Amino acid sequence: MKDSIINNEADFIRNLAGDFPRHPRQINHLMEADAEIIRLIGTEDEFLVLKTDGIHEEIREGLYDDPYLVGWMCITAPMSDIAAVGAQPTGILLSLTLPQHSDDKWLRQFKAGINAACRTYNTYVLGGDTNFGHAFSVSATAVASIKSHRPLLRSGARHGDYLYATASLGLGNAYAYYRLFDSSIEIKYQPIARLAESGVIAKYASACIDTSDGLFPALSVLSEINKVGFDLTVPLQDLLHPSILPLKDHSGLPAWMFMAGPHGEYELLLTVPEKVNDEFQRACEGSILQPLFLGKIIDNETILFSSESLKVQCHPAAIANLFSESNGNIQSYFERLLKQHQHWINT
Amino acid sequence: MKDSIINNEADFIRNLAGDFPRHPRQINHLMEADAEIIRLIGTEDEFLVLKTDGIHEEIREGLYDDPYLVGWMCITAPMSDIAAVGAQPTGILLSLTLPQHSDDKWLRQFKAGINAACRTYNTYVLGGDTNFGHAFSVSATAVASIKSHRPLLRSGARHGDYLYATASLGLGNAYAYYRLFDSSIEIKYQPIARLAESGVIAKYASACIDTSDGLFPALSVLSEINKVGFDLTVPLQDLLHPSILPLKDHSGLPAWMFMAGPHGEYELLLTVPEKVNDEFQRACEGSILQPLFLGKIIDNETILFSSESLKVQCHPAAIANLFSESNGNIQSYFERLLKQHQHWINT
Repeated sequence: MKDSIINNEADFIRNLAGDFPRHPRQINHLMEADAEIIRLIGTEDEFLVLKTDGIHEEIREGLYDDPYLVGWMCITAPMSDIAAVGAQPTGILLSLTLPQHSDDKWLRQFKAGINAACRTYNTYVLGGDTNFGHAFSVSATAVASIKSHRPLLRSGARHGDYLYATASLGLGNAYAYYRLFDSSIEIKYQPIARLAESGVIAKYASACIDTSDGLFPALSVLSEINKVGFDLTVPLQDLLHPSILPLKDHSGLPAWMFMAGPHGEYELLLTVPEKVNDEFQRACEGSILQPLFLGKIIDNETILFSSESLKVQCHPAAIANLFSESNGNIQSYFERLLKQHQHWINT
Repeated sequence: MKDSIINNEADFIRNLAGDFPRHPRQINHLMEADAEIIRLIGTEDEFLVLKTDGIHEEIREGLYDDPYLVGWMCITAPMSDIAAVGAQPTGILLSLTLPQHSDDKWLRQFKAGINAACRTYNTYVLGGDTNFGHAFSVSATAVASIKSHRPLLRSGARHGDYLYATASLGLGNAYAYYRLFDSSIEIKYQPIARLAESGVIAKYASACIDTSDGLFPALSVLSEINKVGFDLTVPLQDLLHPSILPLKDHSGLPAWMFMAGPHGEYELLLTVPEKVNDEFQRACEGSILQPLFLGKIIDNETILFSSESLKVQCHPAAIANLFSESNGNIQSYFERLLKQHQHWINT
């Protein structure tokens, strides 16, 4: 079994951003957190939190063509990162590229999606910039703050920690399959950034990352940063979002493919040290957070999982890298997934 | 003489952003400041300042093809807005769209321009996001703060105020002419955001805006927001950056065209009330700020100026609107400028 042993996207980011000096009060290293965290001058536990996130490929590839969804997602994507570090949002700035002659109805729906998301997250559009270009695209920068607690980072996970998700998984990839490969069974997709859940998480979690790129890419990042692996003791099919099941039956696709990435469900993935796990469970009782147990953190940099009758042990980056190896070509990516599945069945 | 009596770009922004509720602690109305200003909770005179600015058209139109300049400008543009509200930068986030196969040398030069600008402004790249697309483009979001003084807004200019610029003008448009129309006389262009000057300005100015879009578009915005006009008593040819003069002689273009926009010089334009003008002048002596006097604010919403033998009185938006009326077509814009000049000569 040949596994790619590098995280390609991480290498690209390091190459691009590695030459920039770090801010002396920035507490996260490159890729060590879902958002950028700057300690405020003269404070010990107050932080400015920032995150820029763009929606370009999703529009170009035809994944998002509903303007309401584009509006909803351009707010939800950075808010999910804000949630993953345990911050509360102040607001958001938008950078839009519009076609020279924009469709008024399209723009109204887009703005409706933005407004609905802002109301949901109790946040505001603070400003923005508009340019004209050949195709529509949008980048959003969220601004947030942390007061009186430590920020959540992707680092901090240790052998023996429990691994949880904020809810069931797979909806992002199921939606991509419905949009790009087979529209016979509709999948509804409008994820909610887990800001409301993140207060409890920030108290107990040793590490946190969102699944905006799907479960396996998130695990790949956690593995690389923490030098750990994962024993996913719960069979993956038991972690799937219930609304995927008709599509899963119809397509015959294995559960792991719905978690392979790169289009995620925007849940949070968190690790909880064993010694505070009981307390964490009690804190969740009666709260909005109903965590889904996935398995445990292990020392060995590997992922163990079962998906239906398949039992797999692979390098943490193996599944995540199938997408970057296909150079962003969705058709070729899907073929790689199928080939990988066949390979695992045969070995 | 037919003058457009609306500010087209402003109308567009109002239409786009008008449906978004404002943050309850945002102190600037839509377009009332060069950057977004949010009062910090529990303070009277501490503010979070934010600005998103994109470089798309400048690359597409061939105005910027030197990657070092693109890097320099993507930091300088939002920093200039930060300076215009009297804030000090914390850092910047970049949202990049790269062609699928990026040129390493190009990226190195781009990063060198970013790093040089960050050192100049004593600021840092805090994070970013990278997407792949057909052409390179970049948006930057600057984060800054104001402590212990009121922010500078575009509003606040009154009849009788003195109008100043931080330095001589016209270099942005001269550079555009050199790049797009006649390369026989080279113009060097690498503007510096006036952060160092902005401390003194914040103490005395009643209003401030940067000339990122050129002098006349900036005056058009100041006029609309403050319901005032301008008597530019200094002939425009005396306000031109000295390095433009060979190009001006060679091209025969009048001085006003170098201030028409839309590609500016990133100076600050400020208004100073008459009663503090002497004090302002004394504060400038021996400081880095050597303001250039342009004229005075008048009640009547009109602009009076002279350019060589021409004396003009026009609506404040008339010159600014020539660009939006040409729908972004540079050739057609230049023809409109020439036609406008001919019209003024003949009337």
